[in-house]
Amino acid sequence: MAVYTEVTDDDLARLLALYDIGTPTTFKGIAEGVENSNFLLQTTGGRFILTLYEKRVDARDLPFFLGLLEHLAARGVTCPQPVCTRDGRALAEVAGRPASIVTFLDGVWPRRPTVRHCAEVGEALARLHVAGADFALKRPNALGHRAWAPLFAQSADRADEVQPGLGPEIAAEIAAIEAEWPADLPGGVIHADLFPDNVFFLGERLSGLIDFYFACNDFFAYDVAICLNAWCFEPDFSFNVTKARAMLAAYQRVRPFEAAETAALPLLARGAAMRFLLTRLHDWLRVPPGALVVPKDPLEYFRKLRFHRSVAEASDYGLTETA
Amino acid sequence: MAVYTEVTDDDLARLLALYDIGTPTTFKGIAEGVENSNFLLQTTGGRFILTLYEKRVDARDLPFFLGLLEHLAARGVTCPQPVCTRDGRALAEVAGRPASIVTFLDGVWPRRPTVRHCAEVGEALARLHVAGADFALKRPNALGHRAWAPLFAQSADRADEVQPGLGPEIAAEIAAIEAEWPADLPGGVIHADLFPDNVFFLGERLSGLIDFYFACNDFFAYDVAICLNAWCFEPDFSFNVTKARAMLAAYQRVRPFEAAETAALPLLARGAAMRFLLTRLHDWLRVPPGALVVPKDPLEYFRKLRFHRSVAEASDYGLTETA
Repeated sequence: MAVYTEVTDDDLARLLALYDIGTPTTFKGIAEGVENSNFLLQTTGGRFILTLYEKRVDARDLPFFLGLLEHLAARGVTCPQPVCTRDGRALAEVAGRPASIVTFLDGVWPRRPTVRHCAEVGEALARLHVAGADFALKRPNALGHRAWAPLFAQSADRADEVQPGLGPEIAAEIAAIEAEWPADLPGGVIHADLFPDNVFFLGERLSGLIDFYFACNDFFAYDVAICLNAWCFEPDFSFNVTKARAMLAAYQRVRPFEAAETAALPLLARGAAMRFLLTRLHDWLRVPPGALVVPKDPLEYFRKLRFHRSVAEASDYGLTETA
Repeated sequence: MAVYTEVTDDDLARLLALYDIGTPTTFKGIAEGVENSNFLLQTTGGRFILTLYEKRVDARDLPFFLGLLEHLAARGVTCPQPVCTRDGRALAEVAGRPASIVTFLDGVWPRRPTVRHCAEVGEALARLHVAGADFALKRPNALGHRAWAPLFAQSADRADEVQPGLGPEIAAEIAAIEAEWPADLPGGVIHADLFPDNVFFLGERLSGLIDFYFACNDFFAYDVAICLNAWCFEPDFSFNVTKARAMLAAYQRVRPFEAAETAALPLLARGAAMRFLLTRLHDWLRVPPGALVVPKDPLEYFRKLRFHRSVAEASDYGLTETA
């Protein structure tokens, strides 16, 4: 639910003058995404999404994000494509913010993911990992495991406002995860935020992936762990092992896990839950007056974290031996 | 900025099964409108807007609103058209709310209206008034002048929280306006909410009108007065008489004012400012925790109200003798 920046008629006219995509026929703010301002922009030249990058996105990362979209598409991963200005730039400026125009992707994101959706996501994630292997740019994971302790430090003194005892449990958990975090696993470009609202479907077939603004270099299996958290829990927080099995099996048909990845999966899933718990906690404690966005409940990921801590081995996620 | 109700995949599938418009290819919440939940719905059959009517809309009024759209379009006013279900109904139900699907209208609403925009709106408003003349259904103006005192009573004891002295001044002003309100003027179906975000343009030409959910039967000149308030003030609250003149002249080329309408215009403009002041004040004092919508500043309309009180006669709005 996000339109943080107003775009005036003059702003839009000035922007479109840089491009060869005609004149606007529709311009509507989109009530999705929590990091940037997004607009449906239809012109005489086609359908596009205009994104204004708000303060949370570091403008120096934009060449990585936009270059990655082109790299992935050239290797068969369906994702929005940056539209370049007449002088060949993928980045412009609108209302004082970095901005880009990308192609519009057909599809509907699943509000209630099914087993079939989870399988499609597993396959698409593996294809993304394979396709990103030879992408030249690198971007460290700014929200990787080493960032968690400093991020938590910003909220530690107020964590118990959300739930008594939350602060000490998170602190202990961060230390425990850190101590066991794998030194090395197969890695490369990961999406790092492949939640249902970033995956489009036409019917039951996956039609594309969007929102690569957390993409970075990290372990592939950590990206899988993020998806287990994002797709395989039911609204009552129960873990649906059928969905997990479908996701993991589909992933491995494209890119089989190494033994070390399989062994690390429960820990990586704990870490993934911690990462979203921490950013949600941070945002929850800092809702500005008159906020346009209802912050997401951090406790959802606290419950997921506790679930993963109870998992003894990867087979509990439905992970079976690869053929 | 409004999506109040979540629509699940099953909700959408059940809804579309009632219609002959194919399967969804895009479904996105739109960050516009403050009364209802609106979604861009693209299907294999075309582009549509799905609206879920939230509690502020009385479901018994929906036949008036939807019938009016059809009536106006048949008379050349470009506005969204209700799409009927296979069994001929313009109304359906989604997630427990009345809902309708209407055709998608191309166009961009002007964030910074120009003199040219104001002229186009004046002409379109007059055409709307003429086209609505033979619409069979009636709907009283639920926010008409008789509603203001009871509406204000709900906020009177807290009005001074917004600005000291606001309460007594509003009370006196309502009494003064009520005492002078015309008993009779030419009337019929009015839009009653024709703000810039409800008027689409392609380039400088008006391409359509949307959001008829305040439409009702009232004085035509009151609708003009609402537009003077909504279109002819600058961001610094100064009144732009060039814009007003362009709007009024264009209106009168289609539907000339009677002498009584001209005489009443300053009072009607005060009343129109009061109407929006009161609803904004009401909403301002009742922002729910975690609100998705930033309420609009009531004092904007308080300043407009004071301006209109200073107006001696309609010629101050740039209204010239009709030919």
